[in-house]
Amino acid sequence: MQRVEKEIARLIDECDYDEVTRLFSMLSGGKRLRAKLILKIASDHEQAPLLAAIVELIHAASLLHDDVIDEASLRRGVPSVNATDGSKTAVMLGDILYSKAFTELVSFDKDIAKIIASSVTALSKGEMIDVKMADEFNSDEDKYLDMLYLKTATLIEAAAEASAILAGKDSSLHALYGRNLGLSFQIIDDILDITADEDTLGKPAMNDFVEGKCTLPYIYLYKVLDEADKKRLIALHTVVLDEQESSWIKQKMQEHKTIEKSFELAQKLSNEAMNAMKDNAELVGILQTMIKRSY
Amino acid sequence: MQRVEKEIARLIDECDYDEVTRLFSMLSGGKRLRAKLILKIASDHEQAPLLAAIVELIHAASLLHDDVIDEASLRRGVPSVNATDGSKTAVMLGDILYSKAFTELVSFDKDIAKIIASSVTALSKGEMIDVKMADEFNSDEDKYLDMLYLKTATLIEAAAEASAILAGKDSSLHALYGRNLGLSFQIIDDILDITADEDTLGKPAMNDFVEGKCTLPYIYLYKVLDEADKKRLIALHTVVLDEQESSWIKQKMQEHKTIEKSFELAQKLSNEAMNAMKDNAELVGILQTMIKRSY
Repeated sequence: MQRVEKEIARLIDECDYDEVTRLFSMLSGGKRLRAKLILKIASDHEQAPLLAAIVELIHAASLLHDDVIDEASLRRGVPSVNATDGSKTAVMLGDILYSKAFTELVSFDKDIAKIIASSVTALSKGEMIDVKMADEFNSDEDKYLDMLYLKTATLIEAAAEASAILAGKDSSLHALYGRNLGLSFQIIDDILDITADEDTLGKPAMNDFVEGKCTLPYIYLYKVLDEADKKRLIALHTVVLDEQESSWIKQKMQEHKTIEKSFELAQKLSNEAMNAMKDNAELVGILQTMIKRSY
Repeated sequence: MQRVEKEIARLIDECDYDEVTRLFSMLSGGKRLRAKLILKIASDHEQAPLLAAIVELIHAASLLHDDVIDEASLRRGVPSVNATDGSKTAVMLGDILYSKAFTELVSFDKDIAKIIASSVTALSKGEMIDVKMADEFNSDEDKYLDMLYLKTATLIEAAAEASAILAGKDSSLHALYGRNLGLSFQIIDDILDITADEDTLGKPAMNDFVEGKCTLPYIYLYKVLDEADKKRLIALHTVVLDEQESSWIKQKMQEHKTIEKSFELAQKLSNEAMNAMKDNAELVGILQTMIKRSY
């Protein structure tokens, strides 16, 4: 991973603007999941650290714009750039990181560059669909999962597929692995928003529903509630919940085991991914660590 | 140009999201200066319409984000997307257009893709420098021109250079042409902000200085004013000007011929560009039309 951090630092340095260096240094790097994945899949390839750095810049840019769009004041436990330096700065920094990443992508084979670049269109589109969906209470599971795929899974899928091509490995199996890893990762993130506290999350708890996001536990809950409770749940959509309201939701979710049901889907997707990569202990390990986050 | 519009429509269609199609259709296409330039330089090349469409998508994306950052409510005489659909939508639409353009860019030779992609980093950086510079009254001409080059000229320079490579023509001469066209175009735009009325501009007149932008006529004016008037000018920086204040500025600019001086620089840059392209009547014609805008 040191080689990746060095490549990231070089790319930021090449932007040749001290304000960019300063702002980027304030970002928490996060888990670098996508970079680790690329290094594990294409470990021996000399271009792997650069590809990993490019994907991390793209991911950082997408989070910068996400935080502007969601008006999030915290990211990975530290204040977001839009909170400290304003949303305009966050938009501009995101644009610089995106375009620098795309510029570097040009040095790769066309199929690899195309896979990564088109995943960014998918994730930007996913973000837009996510925002539009939040306007109304959504109880359509398929619609939700389609959005999740675009918004969260496509970049991980692209990272896995592109690094498999780089390493001369089976790209469609790796794409499946990345896609399911991304989906189950996000489903668990959605669960943690409900089950974890603010300190663990590094952001307010039960915030998704306040933001209008009907994640799987809410979708599953809606389906099993009676008409009166359906109405009550919809009435709480986008509302800043008081103690009693959030307790009611959590209690109903416990009663109807909708967290468990969501977790089962995450696990099913994760198992498919493990099956696809059963000969690769490291890739299986990433999935296992990820699934464990929810305990 | 019909082939370019067809390519643009195809790329938007490929985004496969009706919300993107709807929003994009609301944008005014503008003069399509960059596309025209590419077609004139690489007219016979089958990839020219696609390159032109890509550059126009990039330009549209940068304007969407510019308008968010400048909080502009009008663009080319029509309400901006941030005004009609909110700044979040404008950010997301911009990201989709940028990434779609980059995805298509991959089908070009690496040198061409790199020139276009890196110009986007330059223009995003230019936008950030522009915003930072607006915090204080800037009287440094070089600093201003450096920013102008990044923000406005690099994409036109890249369009000219890349299409020259496509057509097997002299790329550095065409790059010089594009750079100087971009710079003189923007200087004239800055002049028009002072001399034209709201109807002609399609946005409020004398708005640059209110936004903190010290364009050349202001920089030249500052240099020649006495200490008392220097202070008065600085005091008006970022202020919404009343009739008397804007009259005072215009009168002082007339007195010291700072509009003329700015125009002379635009003309000098334009002449250099004409000289570089003296055998190409069409490219010379673009410059002449552009310079004429200021009358």
